[in-house]
Amino acid sequence: MIQVIKIGGGILENEASREMFLRQFAAVEGPKVLVHGGGRLATTMAERLGVKTQMIDGRRVTDKETLDIVTMVYGGLVNKQLVASLHTRGVNAIGLTGADGGWMKAVKRPIKNGIDYGFVGDVTQVNGAFLRMLVDNGYVPVIAPLTYSQEGFLLNTNADTIASSTATSLAPEVQLTFCFEKAGVLRDADDESTLIPRITRESYKQLLADGIVSGGMIPKIDNAFAAIEHGVQSVRITHANNLQGGTIIIE
Amino acid sequence: MIQVIKIGGGILENEASREMFLRQFAAVEGPKVLVHGGGRLATTMAERLGVKTQMIDGRRVTDKETLDIVTMVYGGLVNKQLVASLHTRGVNAIGLTGADGGWMKAVKRPIKNGIDYGFVGDVTQVNGAFLRMLVDNGYVPVIAPLTYSQEGFLLNTNADTIASSTATSLAPEVQLTFCFEKAGVLRDADDESTLIPRITRESYKQLLADGIVSGGMIPKIDNAFAAIEHGVQSVRITHANNLQGGTIIIE
Repeated sequence: MIQVIKIGGGILENEASREMFLRQFAAVEGPKVLVHGGGRLATTMAERLGVKTQMIDGRRVTDKETLDIVTMVYGGLVNKQLVASLHTRGVNAIGLTGADGGWMKAVKRPIKNGIDYGFVGDVTQVNGAFLRMLVDNGYVPVIAPLTYSQEGFLLNTNADTIASSTATSLAPEVQLTFCFEKAGVLRDADDESTLIPRITRESYKQLLADGIVSGGMIPKIDNAFAAIEHGVQSVRITHANNLQGGTIIIE
Repeated sequence: MIQVIKIGGGILENEASREMFLRQFAAVEGPKVLVHGGGRLATTMAERLGVKTQMIDGRRVTDKETLDIVTMVYGGLVNKQLVASLHTRGVNAIGLTGADGGWMKAVKRPIKNGIDYGFVGDVTQVNGAFLRMLVDNGYVPVIAPLTYSQEGFLLNTNADTIASSTATSLAPEVQLTFCFEKAGVLRDADDESTLIPRITRESYKQLLADGIVSGGMIPKIDNAFAAIEHGVQSVRITHANNLQGGTIIIE
């Protein structure tokens, strides 16, 4: 069983939460893969360089200059610092973008309704055998949220999507974990004691009907079921300091 | 036989010379490894970010902010763009720093005569088996001039040194090529028709005695013979647009 664990940029920006997470990640036994976001670091760097960040519906527009910044920050700074830091914890990490080994291809998202997100990639092809070769040889892939196009340029890609695509490419002996700042899926978003420990397709219908799951959690859970449909055994949504806990989503 | 080819940052900064080089590199048959420098891009980025570049005897002092910049520029931007671009030329490239797979360890250069170069790494340990695993599986490592320390931080390391260490770790079935802006070792630095096609240890003594080889070329050739002493079959010093030509240095 391979564990694919996704960590958001927010956790990595704070030293205490990053160290807590890395300690837990290092302790996960067996083959594993880490997918990381980049978060606000790219925005900060863009500001320092005087490059304007344009957002449409909460999504970053990636022009050429912004693409260079996310390539530097996600593919360079965040990825390589994570890799170096994991080695001191006994994790034989190897940093990757989708371009490395050509393992995750994408196409530039087409312009739709007049909206052009720029150099943003929609994943088209994933070579799970490449990751498997690394994992079988004892390495732990650490994946930055960048893919590439067959025209030879890099593309900015959502880290949740990369995590799902990665897990799917390794199916069926794979579990996927999304770590964030909350305990998991909560009945009451403000009360961590209302954690829902387990969601099946059946119970999800009821949670939706009762309006208990709403807003940004819906696409997260929909994505989880999509991954399960593609052969992933289970998907966990949990706090970054509690990798074995949270909400587990299964068929 | 594995070809280890080192390309300077200067060649990569110019689009025409970069494309010419990449076309030639793609055409090299058999297993191969690319080592790249970063050149002035890091200096330009430091200027844009308002970070002062301090040089001592022509060498960059790498403070914490400068280390972050070279990590972004060498490990992120330059490395990943090269990797993506090589894939469109049919080269199954995979970008690496020394931290990835933990294959090239270094120690922070000790302070000597009061001079502290900061986060600059002297290579201590190279895992050639890691590169060989990638090469045996059909991948082409593309190596950025960054190593890492066992304390978990990255270190800025001279690309020529990385190329020599890489070649040595793959000895004896390995050839090393240094590409730069000149045709090779010249009798008259201003006249490319005076290329010395072949230097042996014997002929080198004579070239030194006659004052034909001097200045910055001496450490280059000394390094070449050091690599040969460590089992590398031959070292070539040549123009980036003529990978089969230039000066060959052999025992």
